[in-house]
Amino acid sequence: MAEIYMDNAAGTRLLDEVYESMVPYMKTYYGNPSSIHSMGTEPREAINRARGQVASMIGAEAADIYFTSCGSESNNLAVKGTMLASIKTGRHVVVSAVEHQSVLNAARAMKRNGWDVTIVNTDNKGFVDPDAVNAAVRSDTVLVSVIHASNEIGTVEPIREIAKVVKSRNIPFHTDAVMTAGVIPVNVDDLGVDMLSLAANSFGGPKGAAALFIRKGVRVFSIFDGGIQERGRRAGTENVPAIVGLGKAAEMAVKDMDNRIKVTTALRDKLMNGLESKIPKLYINGDREKRLPGNVHASIEAIEGESILYSLARKGVMAASGSSCADKALKTSHVLTATGLDPALANASILFSLGFENTGEEIDHVLEVLPPIVERLRSMSPIWNG
Amino acid sequence: MAEIYMDNAAGTRLLDEVYESMVPYMKTYYGNPSSIHSMGTEPREAINRARGQVASMIGAEAADIYFTSCGSESNNLAVKGTMLASIKTGRHVVVSAVEHQSVLNAARAMKRNGWDVTIVNTDNKGFVDPDAVNAAVRSDTVLVSVIHASNEIGTVEPIREIAKVVKSRNIPFHTDAVMTAGVIPVNVDDLGVDMLSLAANSFGGPKGAAALFIRKGVRVFSIFDGGIQERGRRAGTENVPAIVGLGKAAEMAVKDMDNRIKVTTALRDKLMNGLESKIPKLYINGDREKRLPGNVHASIEAIEGESILYSLARKGVMAASGSSCADKALKTSHVLTATGLDPALANASILFSLGFENTGEEIDHVLEVLPPIVERLRSMSPIWNG
Repeated sequence: MAEIYMDNAAGTRLLDEVYESMVPYMKTYYGNPSSIHSMGTEPREAINRARGQVASMIGAEAADIYFTSCGSESNNLAVKGTMLASIKTGRHVVVSAVEHQSVLNAARAMKRNGWDVTIVNTDNKGFVDPDAVNAAVRSDTVLVSVIHASNEIGTVEPIREIAKVVKSRNIPFHTDAVMTAGVIPVNVDDLGVDMLSLAANSFGGPKGAAALFIRKGVRVFSIFDGGIQERGRRAGTENVPAIVGLGKAAEMAVKDMDNRIKVTTALRDKLMNGLESKIPKLYINGDREKRLPGNVHASIEAIEGESILYSLARKGVMAASGSSCADKALKTSHVLTATGLDPALANASILFSLGFENTGEEIDHVLEVLPPIVERLRSMSPIWNG
Repeated sequence: MAEIYMDNAAGTRLLDEVYESMVPYMKTYYGNPSSIHSMGTEPREAINRARGQVASMIGAEAADIYFTSCGSESNNLAVKGTMLASIKTGRHVVVSAVEHQSVLNAARAMKRNGWDVTIVNTDNKGFVDPDAVNAAVRSDTVLVSVIHASNEIGTVEPIREIAKVVKSRNIPFHTDAVMTAGVIPVNVDDLGVDMLSLAANSFGGPKGAAALFIRKGVRVFSIFDGGIQERGRRAGTENVPAIVGLGKAAEMAVKDMDNRIKVTTALRDKLMNGLESKIPKLYINGDREKRLPGNVHASIEAIEGESILYSLARKGVMAASGSSCADKALKTSHVLTATGLDPALANASILFSLGFENTGEEIDHVLEVLPPIVERLRSMSPIWNG
């Protein structure tokens, strides 16, 4: 069997049609969108088309979409940009304990500059309680940011309910939807959010393209300044091919979303159920129902997550441990810590993030190779007494 | 004659070999460089290769190269990152009046937050005087930033001399080399700079890839936070294909630089001399010798620069007015204002930014079509009395 990619939370394969849509903007229309001659026209129009495609995907106005270079930039722009714009209102921000590092660390960076940060904890499935958010909000709170779905344990947060609470207090509300936009239905009005981050690479689009939705009227300062690109909120020559790819990926995601969700959810449930039935003392983290379609996050008692990864890799299976993207510096995932998971189990965790391009045969392969790996590793473990 | 692209300061054509180098990282090696499985390996190694290629081009250590998404981001990281890291030392920064908007506006943004900014003026050719920089430096100055070469009038600044002055005062020195790196020889030790910004799109590389050189020991805070990519100084999943393209473009620039400079300089001089001899009351801005190889910036008395552009466009010639990238909001270029150019002449300016892919025939075409355009426009001008 060829190599099996089950690390879609770290980045999806660039879809062929998306790649093809980008090629003309690399090879032919290489002009700067700000140029007033004909070489600027096509890139400028392409960016506008992409803005419309992204807006459609999340039920937003095209004018409220701001392109950035990655999800982390979108999150930093939302968090720092709002905090910087609101100095006269207050210097307090509320975030959840299961945010992506880019939200958490953006907030922490502001803390070093004198802002106050309240981190709201979750229950053992990773859910943020709207009432807890309400209790954390103060008269000087200028922003609340809660992730739409955890990039680790896949828990989909009750954003609509949290938004209601936050809006009743008249405070801007941001959600990091990098794991959900383009994957499950996301509508900014339905969710009731003021800002929303998304990234192309989560749904078959290219690296280097992401966006922040900023509802009209919400005050956000730029975090890098310069020219007047993106209406002055994000300076710098636009990465036209990547933005075109983001737009195309958004368009495809809308068209194929129902099918993708169906396929991915079936694969996920097959893998979750198979793992539980075949491996004793394996625990699924997060919620069974309100979780990302492709997310299988499990703790396997008495084994280091990384050992499993390396063994799986030798069998051609690519998965992730802890946070699926980059935080090699952290030993124990802050998300798993937030759910109160025993640290030993937290470090014994593995994440399969499936996509709609995975197959039933690939799930079968994992279910065939993983149990003997676990058995072998446990036989060498000093703490295993199964 | 086909369309003639003379707007290379706004962005160069992506070279075919560079494009080809990027394709595998879009189509095949789509993994996240932070992943520990095999799909992360090749992207991670590719980024390291690119880091070496970029470092070689500017005589730096690979470990001192930090990838960003565009020149504006590099400039913001240098300016704001240094200022944020130096709060305890002081809150004063010195920049020249001919900086790119991303440096000027980054400094201005910090000014709104309580920092002091001194802007050093230039002479009528756009040169920054090292003595003037020395006079502007104070005991609480934490950064001096002077552009290597103006993106508008092409004047190459005496960076070595300015660096000497700044270093004698023991202050970090940044240069925006977006117009020079990959175009003319740039060596960070020879120049004596602590930080240097460069962008792939200035020398045949892709949009979406740039870098900041930060000399070991210089303190720079990140402007967006999150994962530990780029050793914690620039969070976010790396744009692998674009970074690979930046590396390849750097490698090609080093190999072909002498030839490119020779070709481009000859074209530039042919166009400058031709324009001066064929069009009365046309003035070349900037310095004749110490200017970018491809830069032809001229003011044509009694005509709006934009009128010339539109007329040229109809003859298939793509050039720019004022600043070659984006600042539609500014009516008169801040660079031309800094040189003391009469506002009427400043607004009558046009920029041809040539590259090594331009040809002598293209120059001939411009020299053929422009004089009658100027004559016609002047015949309609109420202020022309030639």
